[in-house]
Amino acid sequence: SVTPNGMAVSLAINAVISVVGGVMVARTIPAVTFMFLKAGLSGRDLCKPDKESKVPESMGLVTGCVFLIVMFLFLGVAFGQHFLNPTKLFPHAAFSEYLTSLLCICCMLLLGFADDVLNLKWRYKLVLPTVASLPLLMVYYVNLGSTTVVMPKLLRPWIGLTLNIGPLYYIYMAMLAVFCTNTINIYAGINGLESGQTVVAGASVALFNIIELSSSQAFSHYFSLCLLLPFIATSLALYYHNRYPARAFVGDTFTYFSGMTFAVVAIIGHFSKTVLLFFMPQIFNFLYSIPQLFRLVPCPRHRLPRYNEKLDKVEASEAEINESEMRWWVLAALKVLHRLKLVHLRRGTGPDSGKLFINNLTLINLTLLWSGPCHEGTLTNTLLILQILSSALAFVIRYPLADLFF
Amino acid sequence: SVTPNGMAVSLAINAVISVVGGVMVARTIPAVTFMFLKAGLSGRDLCKPDKESKVPESMGLVTGCVFLIVMFLFLGVAFGQHFLNPTKLFPHAAFSEYLTSLLCICCMLLLGFADDVLNLKWRYKLVLPTVASLPLLMVYYVNLGSTTVVMPKLLRPWIGLTLNIGPLYYIYMAMLAVFCTNTINIYAGINGLESGQTVVAGASVALFNIIELSSSQAFSHYFSLCLLLPFIATSLALYYHNRYPARAFVGDTFTYFSGMTFAVVAIIGHFSKTVLLFFMPQIFNFLYSIPQLFRLVPCPRHRLPRYNEKLDKVEASEAEINESEMRWWVLAALKVLHRLKLVHLRRGTGPDSGKLFINNLTLINLTLLWSGPCHEGTLTNTLLILQILSSALAFVIRYPLADLFF
Ligand SMILES: [Mg+2]
Ligand SMILES: [Mg+2]
Repeated sequence: SVTPNGMAVSLAINAVISVVGGVMVARTIPAVTFMFLKAGLSGRDLCKPDKESKVPESMGLVTGCVFLIVMFLFLGVAFGQHFLNPTKLFPHAAFSEYLTSLLCICCMLLLGFADDVLNLKWRYKLVLPTVASLPLLMVYYVNLGSTTVVMPKLLRPWIGLTLNIGPLYYIYMAMLAVFCTNTINIYAGINGLESGQTVVAGASVALFNIIELSSSQAFSHYFSLCLLLPFIATSLALYYHNRYPARAFVGDTFTYFSGMTFAVVAIIGHFSKTVLLFFMPQIFNFLYSIPQLFRLVPCPRHRLPRYNEKLDKVEASEAEINESEMRWWVLAALKVLHRLKLVHLRRGTGPDSGKLFINNLTLINLTLLWSGPCHEGTLTNTLLILQILSSALAFVIRYPLADLFF
Repeated sequence: SVTPNGMAVSLAINAVISVVGGVMVARTIPAVTFMFLKAGLSGRDLCKPDKESKVPESMGLVTGCVFLIVMFLFLGVAFGQHFLNPTKLFPHAAFSEYLTSLLCICCMLLLGFADDVLNLKWRYKLVLPTVASLPLLMVYYVNLGSTTVVMPKLLRPWIGLTLNIGPLYYIYMAMLAVFCTNTINIYAGINGLESGQTVVAGASVALFNIIELSSSQAFSHYFSLCLLLPFIATSLALYYHNRYPARAFVGDTFTYFSGMTFAVVAIIGHFSKTVLLFFMPQIFNFLYSIPQLFRLVPCPRHRLPRYNEKLDKVEASEAEINESEMRWWVLAALKVLHRLKLVHLRRGTGPDSGKLFINNLTLINLTLLWSGPCHEGTLTNTLLILQILSSALAFVIRYPLADLFF
């Protein structure tokens, strides 16, 4: 119902408000730092010589609140034309897509902040996002309702062009919110990584949306852009304060907010598989972490890299393996992965002689194994470049390659 | 579009989920008390012999989150019939009323919790609720858009039956949210009052809605009831833990949540004047507080009653007046009010001799002046009975009296 011209005007307005929002975030964070520290919302920066100085935590709250304000103002402008020109029918369906998206995002912001303050138990963290995505699924059902999946060419002779997976599709979407949130949440721990990966992934999805603006699904991608521009602008401002050396930590507030925003645009925009393509480093990190998450391999409380004070560099951290308690097949698998240079097993020397150590299973530590110890700022930049490269790969998979298979 | 029969079924389902929600709140509060205390979200109970023991603060977070969960589940049921029967048009307008209401309430819950944790500055507390009510005003505009006010009979010869006050009406509605929130917030301080007044006012509005279900505006009142039933149930469960002797404090989280819920039902239900009738004690307390809020009279940091340990009773607390710094007309006015027994001026004796004292200007202290020192639990009960009586008066004003003037 929105003309291409109308979309361009709206997006321009959205971009302007987003930039203002970004500036607001950048200025508000230093102004509220004292408030956060006073409230005890702070963390120690473990990869620094001075481990005692406090950095304000949960600054995602500022990002999220400004994001909501920008969206409220934008909605006033975008739908304002209908107020001035009330002869046309108001686009209720489109409006409720925005409302439900913001409702889900606001719920996750609340949940994330509550988690930062209260350290919620796991069951709350899994149940609440699922309930929070209910209205989103309802709007999806009402407005589009497609639960068909396009089949790869290989399977078409047996299954047909598309397959309607019905309720399974809703379960998949509800899980998407939980999945996005948690994969970002565990790919974290060094200065600038949480906010940086969000900016890169957000910009990649936005680029994809811009390309698709000329497709038949233009409206979905326009909708996604309207959420992503303020999201990228406010996250970028957060990155500015979160990058090495961090003057602000993002908190679960930000990772929850960020994960839900990706899930929302993917669901309403109906491009959830493509969004997952832009999450390749996060997904790899999640799969790589599984042995520790499920305690097949011992998992220490913190898995972030170890700070080497002498070099002022970070290096891969390790977990000690108790060989007698390990299942034989896990140990055998680890030895194969060691050969493939995907994990690093090491016999201790000196006082630890005889003990077996394994690097903590995160993409951050794996990168350090390959590159050797490096400066924390350099490490974040390396990982962000990896994120950019994987986005480039995602575009190759999505366009030239997908044409081969779909 | 909803039939009376459909409404009755929906309301019955809503009531059942609400009761389950209330039980959930009642059980969750003791279970999370330790978490809240550990996070430092606690306050001292100043009207008790043991001033050091900590009571968990911000329990409104539990109430608010369960309220949202109940509403999400209810929406699934209420609009679910349209999913099973997709030939009928989906009632987008009604659905977006729910979405925007929940969005506003969720924003206020977040703001209130942030205030409890961070102690926000006043400008944030005034600006953010106003921005948060923007989508609500948009939905109001789109779905009903009436900005006319019915004139009292006396004025009709000059102005006519109704007056369209246009944009002023929107400003009034935006202010309603800020007003409801803050009047509840300052009528607080003794065990059980915040949650108790909310339950009484909520039940009064719900009763009004039930009466109006047979009117031409049935749908608005049905909508209001769907929000109020879970609101009352979850608040009642909070009252159970908040009443004397308090095992939980409600926090700004609850007063913000509560204020916005009243504003939302009043705006979408288009009965904002009637809601204000049920807020008479709160409005009186606000007006009575004005001299202290605007610093015409000295205002100490806490205005709650003073605990008298010997009697185990509370009595009106006082502020010291520096006569030389007072404007003459304020002092004259206070003397008149003293004659009317609306304030209590007192010359100090003993070490304070010569000094002038005035009771802190809250309805709580005024009640104590009239009743004499009393037990804290008794005081709350007295104030809640006052709230019930004022609700009864509100019904008299709304029905028999309004017919005379309108
Ligand atoms: Mg946490
Ligand atoms: Mg406060």
